[in-house]
Amino acid sequence: MAKNAIVGQSGGPTSVINASLAGVFESCKSRGAGKVYGMLHGVAGLLERRVCVLDDKLHGALDIELLKRTPSSYLGSCRYKLPDWHTPEGEAVYQKLFAILQELEIGYFFYIGGNDSMDTIGKLADYGAHIGSEIRFMGVPKTIDNDLMVTDHTPGYGSAAKYIGVVMKEIIRDATVYGTKYVTIVEIMGRNAGWLTSAAALAKAEDCEGVDMICLPEVPFNVDHFVEKVERMQKAKPSIVIAVSEGVKLEDGRYVCELADDVHAVDAFGHKALTGTARFLANTVARRLDTKTRCIELSTLQRCAGHLTSRTDITEAYQVGGAAAKAAFEGHTGEMVALDRISNAPYQCGTSLHPICEVANLEKKVPLEWVNADHTAMTQDFIDYAMPLIQAELTPIYVEGLPHHIYLPEA
Amino acid sequence: MAKNAIVGQSGGPTSVINASLAGVFESCKSRGAGKVYGMLHGVAGLLERRVCVLDDKLHGALDIELLKRTPSSYLGSCRYKLPDWHTPEGEAVYQKLFAILQELEIGYFFYIGGNDSMDTIGKLADYGAHIGSEIRFMGVPKTIDNDLMVTDHTPGYGSAAKYIGVVMKEIIRDATVYGTKYVTIVEIMGRNAGWLTSAAALAKAEDCEGVDMICLPEVPFNVDHFVEKVERMQKAKPSIVIAVSEGVKLEDGRYVCELADDVHAVDAFGHKALTGTARFLANTVARRLDTKTRCIELSTLQRCAGHLTSRTDITEAYQVGGAAAKAAFEGHTGEMVALDRISNAPYQCGTSLHPICEVANLEKKVPLEWVNADHTAMTQDFIDYAMPLIQAELTPIYVEGLPHHIYLPEA
Repeated sequence: MAKNAIVGQSGGPTSVINASLAGVFESCKSRGAGKVYGMLHGVAGLLERRVCVLDDKLHGALDIELLKRTPSSYLGSCRYKLPDWHTPEGEAVYQKLFAILQELEIGYFFYIGGNDSMDTIGKLADYGAHIGSEIRFMGVPKTIDNDLMVTDHTPGYGSAAKYIGVVMKEIIRDATVYGTKYVTIVEIMGRNAGWLTSAAALAKAEDCEGVDMICLPEVPFNVDHFVEKVERMQKAKPSIVIAVSEGVKLEDGRYVCELADDVHAVDAFGHKALTGTARFLANTVARRLDTKTRCIELSTLQRCAGHLTSRTDITEAYQVGGAAAKAAFEGHTGEMVALDRISNAPYQCGTSLHPICEVANLEKKVPLEWVNADHTAMTQDFIDYAMPLIQAELTPIYVEGLPHHIYLPEA
Repeated sequence: MAKNAIVGQSGGPTSVINASLAGVFESCKSRGAGKVYGMLHGVAGLLERRVCVLDDKLHGALDIELLKRTPSSYLGSCRYKLPDWHTPEGEAVYQKLFAILQELEIGYFFYIGGNDSMDTIGKLADYGAHIGSEIRFMGVPKTIDNDLMVTDHTPGYGSAAKYIGVVMKEIIRDATVYGTKYVTIVEIMGRNAGWLTSAAALAKAEDCEGVDMICLPEVPFNVDHFVEKVERMQKAKPSIVIAVSEGVKLEDGRYVCELADDVHAVDAFGHKALTGTARFLANTVARRLDTKTRCIELSTLQRCAGHLTSRTDITEAYQVGGAAAKAAFEGHTGEMVALDRISNAPYQCGTSLHPICEVANLEKKVPLEWVNADHTAMTQDFIDYAMPLIQAELTPIYVEGLPHHIYLPEA
């Protein structure tokens, strides 16, 4: 009898993570998998045997189309890190997991996620080899942060970059409307890597003057220099729009948002919430320069804007899911699918397989040579890199004026 | 020789204010106006003789289509209040304005804006009558706030409401992803009227559980009761999503955001900036209840999201512009065009004319009978009212992956 497959989603959601789920599901079915199970809330849910049978949830082509257009993780997510299996308590977790997988007659295991999730795939594949399991474990890349090694870019980034490019254009139109002195500071996600903030550079076009400054976490931040730059820029142009990463750091390593008085109040659990960077900078500029300021946090919207996705991104998200299924059925395990750019004009991209150890727990930063000498803008190399990833759209299916989603109430 | 027309935009921008500009322009041209001038930055710009000739800027049908799809005020905006013309200093301003209008050979004057802008139309029409001017002054309604009297709704509201409905659905999908205790508080614009915040109710559908609480400025806010409601709700459902107006007030009349320590720092000019309501409430809930919280300010995005507009709204914005031109050419002055709902099923809407004194400086609130007894949700009456306004879409014209705009660099 054909083995079953199981797929989970982990880490922060994206607009296109469900397209990868669709790719895994359809490719597994077409390759003759038995059932395709979904883990509810990733490995954490699986450990509680919280699974669904996707075959019972996805009924035909319209559901697949809706799944591709539904933002956030259809199966729910988790931020669970598997323990080291070399300790007795650790191994108990793996024994429990593999017992559940055996009971479900799983032959193929897929995990859609970022570098933390790839750690999970690596550990499961290692332990599987250790006990002689035949289950194949494959990683499917996903993160708006675009910080995975090995792959040219990650599914999820293109749509988030497109969202950022679009709303920066709209914010620039809005910010210039009164013709008065105004500094708008837009805070964009990215704790250590500035890929998302860099995407603000895409707003510049023949119909848009573009943003005036881009501040990445890769470049040490100096508050005085920042204010001086704003002052200089405002002499030429009253309304300045600045894109700043939530993760910009001072030369001493502290996050800029730690300079704000109230930042620690945000999270009741003592987590250092990286929010308030734009607000702190807007307040500082307002105090030091004779100008109105405004801060805008793109917040969750940049990762869940299913109404505004890149068709290129959706297609690639689907492809990496399918490529992972193909690889697993061909006997691969402990690997992640990567996207390989073949050419820029015309844009072409293929997939390849890489051992998980080249990906898990590592971070890819924005190359510093893609930032201009003044540390205010991205070079053409970045534009050439990012522009193909935001091309084309996948129109939502609107029902009663709103994009329709597919939705699993128990997830 | 045919008289010329002039049109200006004033107050806060919307996603569809340029559709009204297109309506005024095309209707004036088809009725035989000479030139159609645009005021750059409204009446404030006109007083400095800052005008453009729209005939030279809008070349054919594609430019009109782009104009309909370009958010924020194409001509720039202002927040200028005309003085009382019964004083000598006041009258000097009017003398200057009318001299400029005479020099430009203006016969028809249009102002697209909200209740403050209608004050401008009222004063100009009064002064025009006083000096025997033949210029006709017509108001074209515009505001995302939907707070204008006389009209069933205002152009700009439908698109902002659609944007809010769409992103609330997306935020709800995102907020439930971990299955853990989470309170998400979304801050929505509206200083005194809760029309925009009410639109969060539109997110509820067969594919979405909807928001859990809606807090309008029309209903006095009590922080303790709010926290109690959240606590009660979280017993049934771990992830709670709340829409709160930036303008919610305590029973003693203070804005809730004034309770936050740092709110006064935001604006260097001493303006009481109504921001920080969601942040304050998220911090309060995190401190008092054992839950993670998050705040999201929709900020400028809700008024400038040209990529996500209601086609119904764009069509009506165009229509009120055209109806204003028609009225002016037929001899009307000192009036505003209103939208009159004829029926809900099928949705039909016509226009009518009203004296400016019925509109200027007045505010229409959300009827309290459209809020449920618990003050947490909107009734079906509100849904029936708002749902037709968000129907259908006007697809952006995408160029290189981003919506293309039409843009006046000098505005």
